[in-house]
Amino acid sequence: MEQMKQMEQEIVKSQLEHRTIREFKQEPISSDLFDLLLEVARRTPTSNGMQSSSILRITDPKIKQSIAEICNQEYVATAPELLIFIVDQHRNQAIALEKSVSQEYAADIDRFFQGYTDACITAQNILVAAETMGLGVVYLGSILNDSRRMCQLLKLPSLTFPVVGLGIGYPNQHPEKKPRMKQELRVFENQYRIFEHYLEEIKSYDEEMENYYDLRNANQRVDSFSDQIASRLSMVNANRQQMLDVVREQGFSAR
Amino acid sequence: MEQMKQMEQEIVKSQLEHRTIREFKQEPISSDLFDLLLEVARRTPTSNGMQSSSILRITDPKIKQSIAEICNQEYVATAPELLIFIVDQHRNQAIALEKSVSQEYAADIDRFFQGYTDACITAQNILVAAETMGLGVVYLGSILNDSRRMCQLLKLPSLTFPVVGLGIGYPNQHPEKKPRMKQELRVFENQYRIFEHYLEEIKSYDEEMENYYDLRNANQRVDSFSDQIASRLSMVNANRQQMLDVVREQGFSAR
Repeated sequence: MEQMKQMEQEIVKSQLEHRTIREFKQEPISSDLFDLLLEVARRTPTSNGMQSSSILRITDPKIKQSIAEICNQEYVATAPELLIFIVDQHRNQAIALEKSVSQEYAADIDRFFQGYTDACITAQNILVAAETMGLGVVYLGSILNDSRRMCQLLKLPSLTFPVVGLGIGYPNQHPEKKPRMKQELRVFENQYRIFEHYLEEIKSYDEEMENYYDLRNANQRVDSFSDQIASRLSMVNANRQQMLDVVREQGFSAR
Repeated sequence: MEQMKQMEQEIVKSQLEHRTIREFKQEPISSDLFDLLLEVARRTPTSNGMQSSSILRITDPKIKQSIAEICNQEYVATAPELLIFIVDQHRNQAIALEKSVSQEYAADIDRFFQGYTDACITAQNILVAAETMGLGVVYLGSILNDSRRMCQLLKLPSLTFPVVGLGIGYPNQHPEKKPRMKQELRVFENQYRIFEHYLEEIKSYDEEMENYYDLRNANQRVDSFSDQIASRLSMVNANRQQMLDVVREQGFSAR
């Protein structure tokens, strides 16, 4: 570790200090800074060099409000910047069509997943850049609460699909660092490791979580991790169960 | 921009300077440094706090060789570190089972995508940390050439699925920065923008790509972007078309 330069330590430190920010100052992000975030997006690794994801920057307050409703999270509408990352094979298919060559495999589920991966890693690359520059970020997986309405709202054409959103701005809150389960449960060597007694393995993590204060309910302790999991896996979001239907409606062969 | 501190500029600079590294020095990564990468993984944002992804660190040369064969890329076997990121709802389902509560929605496709997103953004977070520390990284989307064999090889239980791999080590090559298409084609405001003539829009990008030397074929120029796309969208990988079958075999309701 001693050979690490200070600069490098600072970078990783920023990654280790990640917190989700849900309340932002109403201070805009300068266009220079924002352009830099987009340049980071452009330089993000991309599967096969195909660049099969795109970004929608939401500036229209009405659309922001609609997305906040889909997400069922009011703070979405108040984020100074709201970005939606999408699978995008539409552009590549159009390029092949213009060249008058076959593009019959543009709709393969494989191409969908390439774009999905591209979209996710682009979002994370922007998140890291934003946080190192003092900005706060919230992931919005909840846009998938109604992926069909997201497609309509953003006029997403065939061979595109919404993946995840990011709200970005200067933080107006200081959340505690959220506890995480121990490494041993999530990193395995050569083959998957099944534990015999998970509740025992996460006992101290469960306790840690019960002592963690979530700013969303400032005066209330949160449930233990195992209680959170138990509750989440016994609930259903019928819309989200139908995700692949929307993937098909968008033209992909999700057989 | 002037208000950005030098440190911040350096971080983003590292992200802007990303190159894929496919040839590594046979110099191991120190365990301190490697542990730091795993800690970055642990602190990565995670959907609903559910931590539904895991990492397999491949150290067995035979398994590395088998993965190299699946990827159809020899250099995979020579990467000092090889990490496979997986969807993992197995652990959370086991936790709910131990608590003797219902876990009937653990297999929902929604939960699969949560884990898929978690796996991707964890990989990218590690990539950024690794590159800022002077390491080189290659993404291995090609593990999906045979996801069924990957599941067998890594003994992946129900409700898990391989997403993407990373090869990591000290770079033994200095590739040129790969050209990318212009921002305007990939970032839209409020709604998706369809262009009328993509070939015209990417004309200079196509030329730029033809002048780019790919180290994999050092003495040969690469195809223009539009030719690459045309060729890729007219080819099929039958195995990859069947990805959702393997997702189902792994126990998810991919209806």
